[in-house]
Amino acid sequence: MTTILKIGGSVLTDKNKASAARPEVIVRIAREISDNPGGGLILIHGAGSFGHHQAKEYRLTEGLNDWSIKGILPTHNAVKSLNKMVIDALQMGGIDALPVHPLSACTLKNGRINGMCLDAIRLMLHAGIVPVLHGDVVMDSVKGEDILSGDQLVVYLATELKADRVGIGSNVDGVLDHVSKVIEKITPADKNKVIGMLSGSSGVDVTGGMLGKVTELITLAGAGIPSRIFNAETPGNVAKFLKNDLNEGTFICGE
Amino acid sequence: MTTILKIGGSVLTDKNKASAARPEVIVRIAREISDNPGGGLILIHGAGSFGHHQAKEYRLTEGLNDWSIKGILPTHNAVKSLNKMVIDALQMGGIDALPVHPLSACTLKNGRINGMCLDAIRLMLHAGIVPVLHGDVVMDSVKGEDILSGDQLVVYLATELKADRVGIGSNVDGVLDHVSKVIEKITPADKNKVIGMLSGSSGVDVTGGMLGKVTELITLAGAGIPSRIFNAETPGNVAKFLKNDLNEGTFICGE
Repeated sequence: MTTILKIGGSVLTDKNKASAARPEVIVRIAREISDNPGGGLILIHGAGSFGHHQAKEYRLTEGLNDWSIKGILPTHNAVKSLNKMVIDALQMGGIDALPVHPLSACTLKNGRINGMCLDAIRLMLHAGIVPVLHGDVVMDSVKGEDILSGDQLVVYLATELKADRVGIGSNVDGVLDHVSKVIEKITPADKNKVIGMLSGSSGVDVTGGMLGKVTELITLAGAGIPSRIFNAETPGNVAKFLKNDLNEGTFICGE
Repeated sequence: MTTILKIGGSVLTDKNKASAARPEVIVRIAREISDNPGGGLILIHGAGSFGHHQAKEYRLTEGLNDWSIKGILPTHNAVKSLNKMVIDALQMGGIDALPVHPLSACTLKNGRINGMCLDAIRLMLHAGIVPVLHGDVVMDSVKGEDILSGDQLVVYLATELKADRVGIGSNVDGVLDHVSKVIEKITPADKNKVIGMLSGSSGVDVTGGMLGKVTELITLAGAGIPSRIFNAETPGNVAKFLKNDLNEGTFICGE
């Protein structure tokens, strides 16, 4: 069984400060993972405050130019340092986790993943190792460079590796409707309705926030891979998801 | 014009100590590169004392087992920290350099490169960015994991990217014969003679030292790509190589 678990940057970091982690959350989530070593797990994390500030300052989503080219390295280094904290926390819990950095392993074409070295990830899974990926700045054959969100990575890897289940650990209880109630289930038929509802919300997240997330996951559901958006700030939810025992949040499925 | 320049780990680090760099050498070589920004440059460095000690302790060349699996991350982290120093030194000289980590970007099959994400490197070159790669521990479809030497990377990238010239900056003056005189030129016809001569030397370098280097480069010369092994500890030699003005060392060519 292949499981893809994404933990949002807002969960692992303090988005109000540049490069500020929430180590107690990182350690807790690492423990929930190490207490449930099921095998076949791919972990993806967002950049949070390790990257978004840099990406904004250097306007990385505008593509390659004389200014943005100076922002690739600091942005990449920042998210790598968060990646190292996550991996160290997993290793301390006895999990063999290794980094896979998108800037090294993949390229974009106009903002969408165009190709990726999946063999390293496959061999890690086969060896019982947890590959840990992250949102990153990545070379782009049209724009020069662009931001690759953890959410796009989730959908790409789930599709290419034929994942059985996808979990999106967020800092909210799920997709909220106009009266802030969690929508229990979304199917591709609900797409336009949900997009319309979420387009009202605004945010500084350069990867698109909840709207981007849901749009990607509806596409995934259409391809037969269900996902669940849940609150990873609630202790125990990551463990429950890994045990296939989580009923909270929003379930996005084919029908 | 595509140039591949490899700087040995023995040049950049103190191999007698674990994880000890030679920052003055790193800064000097970075300056020689930034003073000659020709475009089309790929830089590869060895691990030196950042990785060899860890690789030996965890016996990484024996393949994946319960002991070696614990050595992948520390070995990878060590060489990454050397990679960061090299890139920082280049960036300080105004060169847009970015890391490409083999553990993320490629896989081996019984110790030989089986596949690699070359698109990121191609797009960096196209953007005028210097990709900086390094010897690394890499997943292997037969052995589980193995050490990938910078020398093997040189040959693979030179072949796949159709490089015009290859420079191997070493801590010796070139390939030395039995009376320690530099051999000026080696062709594939000299292969057995040179291998016989070099097999006498012993070393702790897990990547094979000079014998491994020359064997790889003779293969490359056979494919039409010439290379030069020179002493990168001599100030000015890297600059001369980049200016196509270096006549020292050993030239390895097709005929």
